[in-house]
Amino acid sequence: MKIAFFGVGNMGGPMACNLLKAGYELNAYDINPEAVEAIIKDGAKGFHSVKDALEGVDVVITMVTQGKIVRELYLGKNGILENAPEGVLLIDCSTIDAESSKLVANEAKKKGFPMIDAPVSGGTAGAAGGTLTFIVGGDSENLDKARPMLEQMGANIFHAGGNGAGQVAKICNNMLLAIHMIGTAEALSLGVANGLDPKVLSEIMGKSSGNNWSLEKYNPYPGVMEGVPASRDFAGGFGNMLMAKDLGLSQEAAIKSKSVTPMGAMALNLYNIHAKKFGNLDFSSIIRTIQGK
Amino acid sequence: MKIAFFGVGNMGGPMACNLLKAGYELNAYDINPEAVEAIIKDGAKGFHSVKDALEGVDVVITMVTQGKIVRELYLGKNGILENAPEGVLLIDCSTIDAESSKLVANEAKKKGFPMIDAPVSGGTAGAAGGTLTFIVGGDSENLDKARPMLEQMGANIFHAGGNGAGQVAKICNNMLLAIHMIGTAEALSLGVANGLDPKVLSEIMGKSSGNNWSLEKYNPYPGVMEGVPASRDFAGGFGNMLMAKDLGLSQEAAIKSKSVTPMGAMALNLYNIHAKKFGNLDFSSIIRTIQGK
Amino acid sequence: MKIAFFGVGNMGGPMACNLLKAGYELNAYDINPEAVEAIIKDGAKGFHSVKDALEGVDVVITMVTQGKIVRELYLGKNGILENAPEGVLLIDCSTIDAESSKLVANEAKKKGFPMIDAPVSGGTAGAAGGTLTFIVGGDSENLDKARPMLEQMGANIFHAGGNGAGQVAKICNNMLLAIHMIGTAEALSLGVANGLDPKVLSEIMGKSSGNNWSLEKYNPYPGVMEGVPASRDFAGGFGNMLMAKDLGLSQEAAIKSKSVTPMGAMALNLYNIHAKKFGNLDFSSIIRTIQGK
Amino acid sequence: MKIAFFGVGNMGGPMACNLLKAGYELNAYDINPEAVEAIIKDGAKGFHSVKDALEGVDVVITMVTQGKIVRELYLGKNGILENAPEGVLLIDCSTIDAESSKLVANEAKKKGFPMIDAPVSGGTAGAAGGTLTFIVGGDSENLDKARPMLEQMGANIFHAGGNGAGQVAKICNNMLLAIHMIGTAEALSLGVANGLDPKVLSEIMGKSSGNNWSLEKYNPYPGVMEGVPASRDFAGGFGNMLMAKDLGLSQEAAIKSKSVTPMGAMALNLYNIHAKKFGNLDFSSIIRTIQGK
Repeated sequence: MKIAFFGVGNMGGPMACNLLKAGYELNAYDINPEAVEAIIKDGAKGFHSVKDALEGVDVVITMVTQGKIVRELYLGKNGILENAPEGVLLIDCSTIDAESSKLVANEAKKKGFPMIDAPVSGGTAGAAGGTLTFIVGGDSENLDKARPMLEQMGANIFHAGGNGAGQVAKICNNMLLAIHMIGTAEALSLGVANGLDPKVLSEIMGKSSGNNWSLEKYNPYPGVMEGVPASRDFAGGFGNMLMAKDLGLSQEAAIKSKSVTPMGAMALNLYNIHAKKFGNLDFSSIIRTIQGK
Repeated sequence: MKIAFFGVGNMGGPMACNLLKAGYELNAYDINPEAVEAIIKDGAKGFHSVKDALEGVDVVITMVTQGKIVRELYLGKNGILENAPEGVLLIDCSTIDAESSKLVANEAKKKGFPMIDAPVSGGTAGAAGGTLTFIVGGDSENLDKARPMLEQMGANIFHAGGNGAGQVAKICNNMLLAIHMIGTAEALSLGVANGLDPKVLSEIMGKSSGNNWSLEKYNPYPGVMEGVPASRDFAGGFGNMLMAKDLGLSQEAAIKSKSVTPMGAMALNLYNIHAKKFGNLDFSSIIRTIQGK
Repeated sequence: MKIAFFGVGNMGGPMACNLLKAGYELNAYDINPEAVEAIIKDGAKGFHSVKDALEGVDVVITMVTQGKIVRELYLGKNGILENAPEGVLLIDCSTIDAESSKLVANEAKKKGFPMIDAPVSGGTAGAAGGTLTFIVGGDSENLDKARPMLEQMGANIFHAGGNGAGQVAKICNNMLLAIHMIGTAEALSLGVANGLDPKVLSEIMGKSSGNNWSLEKYNPYPGVMEGVPASRDFAGGFGNMLMAKDLGLSQEAAIKSKSVTPMGAMALNLYNIHAKKFGNLDFSSIIRTIQGK
Repeated sequence: MKIAFFGVGNMGGPMACNLLKAGYELNAYDINPEAVEAIIKDGAKGFHSVKDALEGVDVVITMVTQGKIVRELYLGKNGILENAPEGVLLIDCSTIDAESSKLVANEAKKKGFPMIDAPVSGGTAGAAGGTLTFIVGGDSENLDKARPMLEQMGANIFHAGGNGAGQVAKICNNMLLAIHMIGTAEALSLGVANGLDPKVLSEIMGKSSGNNWSLEKYNPYPGVMEGVPASRDFAGGFGNMLMAKDLGLSQEAAIKSKSVTPMGAMALNLYNIHAKKFGNLDFSSIIRTIQGK
């Protein structure tokens, strides 16, 4: 089986690599020639034209950074919908606005292409280790066709609903994550400023109603937990700029649907302030802005 | 062993009752005569003067609603410190500002009384069932003396640090709880407004990094989870006015310590808006204000 | 001189009427036939096709409610750019996203049409009285051509910059207006809750550094000022839903430009909460949500 | 006429100096001996005991930094109420919590002392130039007695209501000021990020409904206005730490009165973040945090 993979950078590169390891043939395309060179070494064929990359493939996977790019790549002149072999399965793994996802899936459907949106979480480590989480939007039968490939790249697959639902579920999750990460940073900092030990407070809240993923699995207070970004000066992990991007998507969706999200809006603004100073640090570093450091 | 119990209302009443069941002698005092009458039926002796209630007791427990009342009750003329038998153990279970806790404990210490602050969570159901959580501030040896009694009233006992630390840990926990409850209400409402099923979204986020106690144990979206306030029109549970009170304490502590708590401050304001309409409903009803209902 | 006027509803109707009074010939178009009937009575010719309405005109004015509609009206098949007489001046008075404004102006330019964006403030009263404020984006020379007509409809004309700048300036202004309106409602309510007279406090702040347009010209506290919406149960004026719409536009622009607007984001969320209950009241009624009424 | 002046530091020093210039005799007291030395050079008598400083005076003026200090100074052993000559007029110019103001005024009244609270705005420049604004709480007749002295130190005198009302009015004003300062910084930054000229945008909003004191008199955008802190790297003016202090007082009052102040709470948190980096700069420097600089 042959896959055309568009976007083989930081995330797409290791994802494509896992597909190659599993025995899939793979045509790679990226606007960055170095990214293509790298994946060629892992066994892919490299291409410099969308049309050529699509020749003879059974499946198309895309992994890019913006809704605008997804729209151009699929809908543009010389794009995927115009050049892909009849009826091939389309899988978009990009994290983008749901509106673009629905628009592209709709156009694809008109031309007879089954399509799912399958944004991921888990970062570059998850991409390399094949332990990503996929949150999928689209028909079940299309997800079932995609599943063997997704399983080579990820450890968890959730089906959120119809086309675009993968995007919506992902940004809802990440908005909630940002909110309890900031809340956890505030609560721990408030406790310490009032004389508590952050480890003791983390244990108490972890067994109480304050418990949440940020506190329990990804504690932002330096020195409380080993093996998390807070224990290594916030290097690695999920960057502040990426979190700010996802929060921006959540607030665009909120504005369009007139949803009330005061905490989500605050999270966006705090990460925008924070990311201007610490763009590449892990998102748990927000505790620095909370503590004025 | 004989206990003087001050404040036998909605919370203190069932707590005192559990001590009576366990065989403790109990002198009850409350400014509300009906509350005293009720606990007399359960086997307590009733008193109308602080001084009389203290005669011959080994332990004093207080459960009132404000720091001001705690200060008056302990420090006032005819108060506990002036009239309690020498060296009795003092246990304050009220949720109040840490400053008042420290002040009273300090005055108690000067007069030779060991004291702990032991605010509770778990609500009236926990008080009745003897399943409260105590978050304790004070010396370990004083906590150890109190432990047999606390165990009759609660299921979990945490030691947060020195005097006042119980108060600090409790308000940190409840602030974090309020933040992820509002965040969860926002994320689920945003998802539903964009076409998702709240059950499916709850499952996905529950297995992902968005997970938190409000989502997993106390889901605010009506119809998603059985046995929680959201499944019974938000009756019972932990009331909005009580949450607003605890958030007020958290923000007073934040102001005094110049701590940054934008999410906590937002939570206070949203609960103040919300509680004016729905003061007695459970705090998960905040989803109504988020959804404009 | 002959004008094609698209969108002759609550705002566009009285604006068109003022042009008729000044002696302009006017072709009117609206999707709502009743709106067209009404303006016919004032002397306009009514049309049911965009193409027909454009025949022989010198100027096109559009006044609709969304960026999407503006894009369709100008760029769609059978739209304005396809059917307007060569080189006519295009004036879009709609309040929409700057991106759509720039896109349409750019397409217009390619086809040889001069265009300005000229969103208004002043509400239906300003439209009727010919006292609107126009905030204009586009080349000076195009603004100069439009000026005689704008002067029939408004009392103030500001030139904010190139195409789209009218939109940006208007949403910046309205975001700032919403922020100080809410702030004024908070400050007056806080003062009254602490024993002050709202008139006395308004006078003191009006002569001090707290002064702002909402306090001085449009006081939201009932009973303080005559002739403002607060003195008539918030009827009339600039509706909460319109304010929420403008705030949504401001936050979309903020997200796209990664601008930090915590107060603007809060204002959007408060107006979204408020507008669900009081959609048609004047925006100064936000004091009701601040006071929990 | 002879005045005892307690607290002759940055603000109190120049205020006392203006009274000396006007011919008043003045006894000065400060815990900082250097402050006392400085005012002695201007003609005051210096004292190292509260009691001695009070001998033979007709009026007492206090200018200190915290409610706690005011309470100790007036109510403590060896304090003002115990040692002041019978019936002298007490004027507290400190900016403190209204609760402390009311408590002290009440105790003073019991002992036969007329008292007003008269917090100031105008900063060290206003203190030196005698152009302060006084916002007074207390009986009119007591204000009338104080007026000749206040007029030597200030240019405006407002009467806000009974004791404590001066404090309430001042923090309401400063809360509103902080809100529209941040809002102005957001609106100008958003406009510039979307291509506008900050001068043009300031002019447009200044003539429109966005107008407010921060925009018109104290524009925070560097380069827009001459003679304001923004034109000199934010040196001088009203410091961020002082603004954070006043916002803290406003939020303590809000919590106690269960007032809803989401914008005020946000302002406090933003100034707490900002002041940790730029404590001594003028408060209009908040635009740096808004712009991520």
